[in-house]
Amino acid sequence: MQYSSSSIEALIDAFSRLPGVGRKTARRLAMYVLQQPRLEAERLARALIDVKDRVIRCSVCQNVTDREEDPCSICTSQGRDRTVICVVESPVDVLAFEKTGHYRGLYHVLHGVISPLDGVGPDDIKIRELLGRLSPEGIGGVREIVLALNPTIEGETTSLYLSRLLKPLGVEVTKIARGIPVGAELEFIDEATLSRAMEGRSAV
Amino acid sequence: MQYSSSSIEALIDAFSRLPGVGRKTARRLAMYVLQQPRLEAERLARALIDVKDRVIRCSVCQNVTDREEDPCSICTSQGRDRTVICVVESPVDVLAFEKTGHYRGLYHVLHGVISPLDGVGPDDIKIRELLGRLSPEGIGGVREIVLALNPTIEGETTSLYLSRLLKPLGVEVTKIARGIPVGAELEFIDEATLSRAMEGRSAV
Repeated sequence: MQYSSSSIEALIDAFSRLPGVGRKTARRLAMYVLQQPRLEAERLARALIDVKDRVIRCSVCQNVTDREEDPCSICTSQGRDRTVICVVESPVDVLAFEKTGHYRGLYHVLHGVISPLDGVGPDDIKIRELLGRLSPEGIGGVREIVLALNPTIEGETTSLYLSRLLKPLGVEVTKIARGIPVGAELEFIDEATLSRAMEGRSAV
Repeated sequence: MQYSSSSIEALIDAFSRLPGVGRKTARRLAMYVLQQPRLEAERLARALIDVKDRVIRCSVCQNVTDREEDPCSICTSQGRDRTVICVVESPVDVLAFEKTGHYRGLYHVLHGVISPLDGVGPDDIKIRELLGRLSPEGIGGVREIVLALNPTIEGETTSLYLSRLLKPLGVEVTKIARGIPVGAELEFIDEATLSRAMEGRSAV
């Protein structure tokens, strides 16, 4: 069923291409935009174009950053521990760690994980750039690489690949702990996590 | 917590102003836009501006329509019953009726309902325009007005107001039936709806 306006249809189409937005939600969003002042629609439109125009990947850590700020603010920060690099899958993961306010090292964003089924090999993600940071000509001085990939088959595969690649370079390779989330109840934790928690037990 | 890019923050802000979109969803949408080709972002941006530039309200029925098509396609259609006008609250309601493919009359969109608590009086919604369509100088020939407002306090108030206003003009005023939705089970229907269904019973 079509609205009496092709512009509205086009907007509904565009909205429904976003992840998690179906036709009904798209219709609701379009109706909302219609009722809002023009300024609101322009604000979103400008932000969309801006993000494509101005956001680039940091030439060092590959995280997203503004065009005017390359290397990014984390890579250039004087207050961070430059001997540790935390390797993550995507920019949202950097944000997740930054929110903890606990980790003070640097990052490296792979923009994906090795996934042969999807045709993603080691050369398709930012592994070469990571190696570049460890070479003597690179920033150097890196003591530890923390692998913080998602606990999926692909994430584990990538972790394994990276650890085999990095260890010969004389750098310490670690992996973030798998275990019981804070606040969870043992009763409801799946077997795989429980086993990993048991394996990873530490002295108190 | 801020991303390392102000453009991304601006986009997240803009997305999170949409109804039903929180910070987390907005962040996910922004990340999606970042990963998509520029064309996709432009498509949504253009659709947003377009809808504000090109969509107007039909001068007859007040439904949304393209600037080049006023009166709208329903108002100008030769295949519709011009003696019946269905009064609805918003453009989405027109779409809902059109989807049934059953109703063949015209529409009138009020763009709201009378709601004293929100400071919305009869003059703030498109009642004057509806009266204009019934005047001898208007299109005329209207035999019946079907009130199809939402079954809320405000909707009922507006229906009552309209029926008192319209009946003296010699036009038949009807209201869509309240009753058991098709496919529902009596057991789970609320009391108010059941009472209305009983009141509105008809001979078989």
